[in-house]
This record gives sequence, structure tokens and C-alpha cells, in this order.
Amino acid sequence: MEKYQAKAEYINKALFSFLTQRDSHPAVLEAMKYSLLAGGKRLRPILFLSAYELASDDLDIWHCSSANSDSILSMACALEMIHTYSLIHDDLPAMDNDDYRRGKLTNHKVFGEAIAILAGDGLLNLAYEVMLEHLPTDHKMLPGYLKAMSVIARSAGISGMIGGQSADIQYQGDKHSAAALKYIHSHKTEALITASLEAGVLVSNDDNKIIEAVKGFGKAFGLAFQITDDILDLLGNLEQLGKSPGSDEKQGKLTYPAIYGLEESKKMADLYIKKAISFLQPFGNKSEFLIALATTLLDRKS
Amino acid sequence: MEKYQAKAEYINKALFSFLTQRDSHPAVLEAMKYSLLAGGKRLRPILFLSAYELASDDLDIWHCSSANSDSILSMACALEMIHTYSLIHDDLPAMDNDDYRRGKLTNHKVFGEAIAILAGDGLLNLAYEVMLEHLPTDHKMLPGYLKAMSVIARSAGISGMIGGQSADIQYQGDKHSAAALKYIHSHKTEALITASLEAGVLVSNDDNKIIEAVKGFGKAFGLAFQITDDILDLLGNLEQLGKSPGSDEKQGKLTYPAIYGLEESKKMADLYIKKAISFLQPFGNKSEFLIALATTLLDRKS
Repeated sequence: MEKYQAKAEYINKALFSFLTQRDSHPAVLEAMKYSLLAGGKRLRPILFLSAYELASDDLDIWHCSSANSDSILSMACALEMIHTYSLIHDDLPAMDNDDYRRGKLTNHKVFGEAIAILAGDGLLNLAYEVMLEHLPTDHKMLPGYLKAMSVIARSAGISGMIGGQSADIQYQGDKHSAAALKYIHSHKTEALITASLEAGVLVSNDDNKIIEAVKGFGKAFGLAFQITDDILDLLGNLEQLGKSPGSDEKQGKLTYPAIYGLEESKKMADLYIKKAISFLQPFGNKSEFLIALATTLLDRKS
Repeated sequence: MEKYQAKAEYINKALFSFLTQRDSHPAVLEAMKYSLLAGGKRLRPILFLSAYELASDDLDIWHCSSANSDSILSMACALEMIHTYSLIHDDLPAMDNDDYRRGKLTNHKVFGEAIAILAGDGLLNLAYEVMLEHLPTDHKMLPGYLKAMSVIARSAGISGMIGGQSADIQYQGDKHSAAALKYIHSHKTEALITASLEAGVLVSNDDNKIIEAVKGFGKAFGLAFQITDDILDLLGNLEQLGKSPGSDEKQGKLTYPAIYGLEESKKMADLYIKKAISFLQPFGNKSEFLIALATTLLDRKS
């Protein structure tokens, strides 16, 4: 998807400028740059901005020409910072002990565990710093923006992503619990993905129908995304994945293929993508990009 | 100070209620409760609330009867959450590798490293969650509250506390750099202490004279506090300190006694307390509590 690449580039530029503008101790800043600018998919910022496009009349957001560009772009980047911090901490020896991520050595492999922990802390905190430093000057937008911040914060915290990671650690080695798997994935992956979409709507629009539609899309899409991730971890290779394949199995992690088998997992991913897309039908042309994104997801190699 | 104890109790109750209301995965929540409710000094929330009292006309804040109690108390608790998360991460084996804190085993000693990392992440994120969930309903207060949040976020991040910890790690073993020591302490300790005071003013008052006065107090007080901490680490015992004494020296940490000697360090602490107090003279009776607090600090045993 050419359009997706252009959007990812747009995010990359903004992330780079956020980090290079900061005054900080060089050791932790270097480690943060290493992971944040390592070229991820930028999925969460792109979902956020796409939901914003879907729900607002602001069509110039991708060209930095909108009056609200600064605030919107800060929130998009904050989502990527939160996601990247979670990867750095997940990769630590005390957690998943992974050596590769996004095709490069993991943060602690390069900078040591202490700085990697701080780089994660730094990115999580920076997410809130940049949002607070770029609150909308447009007073009409402020309440929605603050509501979106709250949705993001909750999804990133112990009721969302961190809760999911806590469960992930606790259930390692327990291969047979479908309920535990659902808890882990709905909190660890789905929560921030759904929050990205919900926040994208909330900043400009409080129409409950649109919010419920993108949340429905987010939940199904997030689940399909995680199932595909599990399948790739089983079948992929280091070059394609950018991280060591088979690490889930090695660690006795709960995954969809481990519980439902490979073929059934593929069918489930397919089903959830279709379900996700069904939520976007009411939006016609405006949802074209999100539908294409969801469809492409099934064929991804990394 | 009886008044101090009453205020600490007030904060403890609020912290307890914030944690017990949350829906979360039990493992990480248990670890967060363990450290957050372990009975620290609650210095930062008390500084914040005292600065609020100093600058506002709201004298009922300690009795939960003010219209803005919820928002103010959330910010006070957020400061303690940020402080506690930083202690949990600082104590980790990859960082300072400490076994005791606040008179109890450190978080990772009880819950393991993985859950301790997540408990720290959870507390940092929860700080922002509770502030965002309790924004002032009073529209006049909102801009100041958001500005205070931004000040807190910046002081907790890579330009403040996390930057200081990054320097602390880098300079371990380098005993002779007074400049490095200044960088570490001004970022690691002073930044959040000063931000607590500044935020306490900002939520209700944008008078630059008051802001500069409490910042001046905070910088000098924070430095005296850290010097006293360094002295206690050298001279104290486990029972009084609640953490293992002598750990700074063992790790080759930069400290005031290591650079300036014990007697000179004591004189410096005394001098900085006097300097801190001088900033509060213009406030008369209203600054009584903060002045007593600063004076008591010099005699503390933990």
C-alpha cells in the first residue's frame, strides 16, 4: 500500500523532530531514538489519523496545513511512543528476553538493561509530555482532546496494556486456557489499537454512532492482528519478521496456534477481518483506506 | 510534626482509594499496592498541597470539603505515584540493586523483576490516568491545572528525573566530578520537588512572583533534602532508614559526602535550608508550615 507508506513517512518525520528537539541526558535519549526511529509499522498513529479523517471535516491533516496539525500529530506520535516503550520493556531479560526487534538488536542488547528500562520510562512519559505541550488552541477542540487523552491513558495502563502484560507473564507455560488467551490479547494488543481509533474520533466528534463503529472495528481488527502476529511468530523467519521467530513457543506463551491449531487460527483471523470491515460499511468512501489496511493485514509478512 | 503526620494520613487514604477502585490484573495491582501503600513520607504531595494553600484562597483542601478537592487530591496522589514508580525502577537489579525500601523488601524481591517493572510502569501511567479522570469541572481552573500537569510531566521525564537517573548510572564509579553530581541531583530529586510546588501554585494562581518564590524554595530545599539523604545513607542504619545504608558507597555513587566530606556536606545542607526559607519570607503566616517542614528536614533520621 503506497498510501500507507506515505503516511508512515509522515509519522516518522514528526517522531524524529519530537526527539531531536528535546533537552535530555544523552545516554537515555540515544536509546530512545534507537528504538523509536527503528522503523516500525506506525500502525497506531495511522489508525488514529485515519479515524480522525473519518470523523472530521479536516482533510488536510496529512499535509500539516490544518490549524490543528500540531495537536493531532502530537497525539499520533504519543501513541507510537507508548507502543515502543511497551516493546522495549517486553523485550527485557526479566520479561520475554528477546534479542531482535524491528530487524535490529533489542534496546537492552545495545544499551544495557538499566538504560533500556529508562528509555522505556522516558518514552511513556514523553507521550504525555508532548500531548500536554501541544494542547489544541482551538477551545472547541480541547474537551474532546482531553477525553481522547484519557481514553489513551486508560488503555495503556493496568486496565489495558499493562494488565495484559501482567497476565501474559503469569500464564506462561499454561497452554490450555482459551479464556486467559482472550484476556491477554484483548488487554495487551486490542486495548491500545481500539483506543487509537476511538481517540481519533473523539478529538473532533462526539457522535456515539461513529465512536461505537470504530471501537467495533478496533476490537475485531486488533484480534485479527494479534492472531496474525502469533501465526507469523510460528512460521516467519528473522529477516522477514525483524524479530526472532518461534520465541512464543520457546517461552510456552499462550498463542492462537497453540490453542486452536494453525489452520483454525488462519480462519479465525480471516473471520475477524471481515467482521472488522462490516463496522465501516456506513461510512462509504471515507472508510476506503481503513478497509484496505485491514485487508492487507492478512497478507503481511512482518 | 503532628500537622505533617495528619497531612500524610490524608494522602494515604486517597492513595488507597485510588488503587482499590481500579479494575486491573491482580498480579501487577498487588505489586503496585505493596510499594505505594508502604508508608513513605508523602513529601511531594504535601509540598504540592502546601503550595496550593499558600497561593489560593481555598483553605478547606485538607478537609475534602473544597469544590476542587477531587482534582487537587488527584494531582497530589499522582506526584506520589510518579515518585514511587521511580523508586521501584531504581531499586531493580539492573539499576541500584537494592533489597530494602521503606523498611520492607524491595518490589522485585517480593514479586520478581518482571512484575516490578510493570508495577513501575503501571504507577507512572496511573498518575496521568487519575489526573485526566479528575480534571477540574470549574472552567476557570482548567487552564492552570493543565499547565501544572505539563510542568509535572516535564519534571518527571528525560529533561528531569529520568535524565538524572540516566546520568546517575553513567557516572557510577566517577567520584570526583562535582558538576556531574550537581546534574544528577538537580534532575533526579530537585526537578520533581520543585515541580510539585510550582504545580501547587499553578492550579489556582498564575502570579509569577509566587511561582518564582516557590521554585526558589524548591530548588534549595530539594538540594538540602538530597544532601541529607546522602549523609543518612552514609551514617544511618537499616531500621531507621528503611533501606540498606552504605549502598551509595558500595556502588561508587556520586554523593555530597564523597565529594565534599561529611562536615562540609552538613554545612551545605544547613545553608541551603536557610536559603530555601528566605524565599518564603514574603508570605508571612501562610508559609509557616513549609518553613517548619524545611527546618525539621535537617534533623530527620530517614
